[in-house]
Amino acid sequence: MSADTFHGWAVHSKDEPMKWTELPLKEFDADAVEMKVTHCGICGSDIHTMDSGWGPTPYPCVTGHEITGTITRVGENVKKFKVGDRAGVGAQSGSCLDCEDCKRGDEHLCSKRVGTYASFWPNGDKSFGGYADKWRGHQHFVFKIPETMTNETAATFFCAGVTTYSPLKRHNVTKGSRVGVKGIGGLGHFAVMWAKAMGAEVTALSTSDRKREDAKNLGCSDYVVLSDKEGMKSRFDTFTHIIDCSYAERNNFTEIFSLLRNNGTYIVVGIPEQPLDGIPAMLIAAKQITFVGSFIGSPAAIEDMLKFADEHKVRPWLNKWKMSDAPAAVKAFREGKPRYRFVLENDQ
Amino acid sequence: MSADTFHGWAVHSKDEPMKWTELPLKEFDADAVEMKVTHCGICGSDIHTMDSGWGPTPYPCVTGHEITGTITRVGENVKKFKVGDRAGVGAQSGSCLDCEDCKRGDEHLCSKRVGTYASFWPNGDKSFGGYADKWRGHQHFVFKIPETMTNETAATFFCAGVTTYSPLKRHNVTKGSRVGVKGIGGLGHFAVMWAKAMGAEVTALSTSDRKREDAKNLGCSDYVVLSDKEGMKSRFDTFTHIIDCSYAERNNFTEIFSLLRNNGTYIVVGIPEQPLDGIPAMLIAAKQITFVGSFIGSPAAIEDMLKFADEHKVRPWLNKWKMSDAPAAVKAFREGKPRYRFVLENDQ
Repeated sequence: MSADTFHGWAVHSKDEPMKWTELPLKEFDADAVEMKVTHCGICGSDIHTMDSGWGPTPYPCVTGHEITGTITRVGENVKKFKVGDRAGVGAQSGSCLDCEDCKRGDEHLCSKRVGTYASFWPNGDKSFGGYADKWRGHQHFVFKIPETMTNETAATFFCAGVTTYSPLKRHNVTKGSRVGVKGIGGLGHFAVMWAKAMGAEVTALSTSDRKREDAKNLGCSDYVVLSDKEGMKSRFDTFTHIIDCSYAERNNFTEIFSLLRNNGTYIVVGIPEQPLDGIPAMLIAAKQITFVGSFIGSPAAIEDMLKFADEHKVRPWLNKWKMSDAPAAVKAFREGKPRYRFVLENDQ
Repeated sequence: MSADTFHGWAVHSKDEPMKWTELPLKEFDADAVEMKVTHCGICGSDIHTMDSGWGPTPYPCVTGHEITGTITRVGENVKKFKVGDRAGVGAQSGSCLDCEDCKRGDEHLCSKRVGTYASFWPNGDKSFGGYADKWRGHQHFVFKIPETMTNETAATFFCAGVTTYSPLKRHNVTKGSRVGVKGIGGLGHFAVMWAKAMGAEVTALSTSDRKREDAKNLGCSDYVVLSDKEGMKSRFDTFTHIIDCSYAERNNFTEIFSLLRNNGTYIVVGIPEQPLDGIPAMLIAAKQITFVGSFIGSPAAIEDMLKFADEHKVRPWLNKWKMSDAPAAVKAFREGKPRYRFVLENDQ
C-alpha cells in the first residue's frame, strides 16, 4: 500500500455488497490533515448514498461521515493540530472559504462544499469516508476531540449530533420550550438529549410503543404514539417546537401541525427522498407556523456543540461493531437495529 | 330602522347574489364602538367567504373587513375614542384578551378570536362586515385614523396593508434585503411598497407581463415572469425573502425556492383553499429555508403600520366604487380588475 492510498469498504455499484478495497487518498496539500481512523458512525445518509437514493452516487464510494481518529500527518499551513492529536470530522470536508456563506460562518451551505464522501475536491480528486483505515481532508473541517471524550463517544456527534443540535439552538430552544421529537432513532435520541439539556420539556412522537422506556431514560417526560388519535388530540396546541427526525413524507401534516402552539416551529432534519404533499397552508398561516429545514451544521456549530456536550454531559447511546464487520453492521442498520447509533471500530 | 339594526349587502346562500338587507347589530356593551361606515375595501377573503371556499359560511353574511368610518356611539369603558372621531377596523373585531396569545400581543392568534364577519361574539350574536351603513364592535380592535390620511385612503390598510406589513417586519426585511413579491394584486402591491420603504430591493414575480409598468411605479427594480425559465434561472440564489401574495398551490416549489439565497424566508400570505403539494424537503434542508405563514396582524402591528405608512408616505392604489354598486364591484373584483384595491364608499 502506498502512502497515498487507503483501504475502505467501497460500494462499486447500486446493488453490490461493499468490498474492502484499496483506493487513492486526495492529494496531500498545505491544508491537508491525515488521520488514522479509529472510529466511524453509521448514518442514514450512508444508506441513501449507497443506494443512490438522493440521486446517482459516483461509485466506487466509501461512506461514513462521523469519523474520529489520530492525526498522522499535517500540511504546512496546519497550525492547530500536531501529529498524535485526536480529532474528528463530520459530513463536510471542504468549502470555498471565500463566498458570502463561508464568510458569514455558514460554510455548510457553500455551493462549492465538498462532502466527506461521494463528492469531489476542486482538483477533481474524489472524497472518501470513514469506513476505512485512513482519512485525508482539509483542516478547516477537522476538530479536536475534548479531553473528556473518547474517540468512540465523539464520532457520532460529528453528523447526528450537530444535525440536531444546530437547529434546536438556532431556533431558540430554551427553558420554557416544549419540544416534540418525532422519530426516536440516531438523530432523534440526540434531539431529545439536546432539548432536555437546553432546558425544554421533551415529548417523544413515535410510530409505536416500543421506545417508551428508552425515551424516558433519554429525558422525555411524555410519549405519544402518532397513530393514537386521542393521544395526539390531547397534545394539540402544546409544543413550541417539533423536530422531525424521521420520515416526514409520511406525515399527516394537519395533525402534526396541530400539535404546535401559535408561532411554533417545525424543523425537518430527516430528509425524505420524496417531496412533501398535503401541507395545510391555511393552518400554517392561521397559526403562523415556521416550517424550516436544517442541514448538518457549520464548523462554529460543531465547536459549540462539543463544548455544550461536555458541559451538559450529553453522551450518545452506542452499539459498537468491528470495522471488519461493517457489512453486517449496515445490514443490521437497515433493519432498524441501532439503539441508537452504530459505531465501527478499527483494531487499535 | 331601529337603533340596533343596520343595512348591508348580505349574501343569503352560496350562489345567490347579495341583497341590501336589514340585520341586527351586535349587542351594545361597555366596550362597544359604533361607527357610521364611510368606506370599506374589498378583499379576496370576502369572495372566499361568500363562496364558502374556506369552509361553510354562516349565511346570511355581510362581508367587508377594511372598514373606516366616523364614530357615532361608544360604551362606558371606551376612553380612547369620542363620538366624531375617524376610525378603522380590520379583519378581527374581538378576542378573549386573556389567553397567553392575547397577553403576548398576538390577539390575532387567539383561539376565541371574533372575525369581523361570518363569526360569532361570545354572547352568540353574529358579526357583520362593512359592506354596510353601520358597524359595531369591540374598542380593542378599532384604531384612530392618522390625520394625514382620509378614510378612503386608510380603509385597505386594515387588512391588505397589515397582512403584508406584519410578516415583512417580523422577518426583518431591511436595507440590504432582496425581496421577491409574488402576485402583484391587492396584497402584492402593498408588499412591494412596504419592502421598498423598509429599504429592500424589490422584484415582482408575476404570471404575465401585464403589470411590468405598474410594478416599476410601485417601486420594483426588477420584474420576472414566472413561466420564463431563463429569467427565473438567472435570479436563482438572489432573494433573502419571497412573499407569496397569490396562488401558492400552483407553485413549482423547487423553482420558487431556488430563487432564495441560503437561509432565505418564504412567506405565504395568500391562503390557498387547497393544501400545498410537492414541497422539496431536500431543498428546504440544504438551503435552510424558512417557510412561514402569516395571518393578518395584531393590534400592535396595525398601530405600527399606520405610523410607518405615515412616515414613509405609503399609499395604496385604489379604485373607488359607490356602496350602492357593491354587486358590480364584486363582479369586477372576481374578474381581476382592481388596480390594485377596490374601495366602496357610502354617500356622505
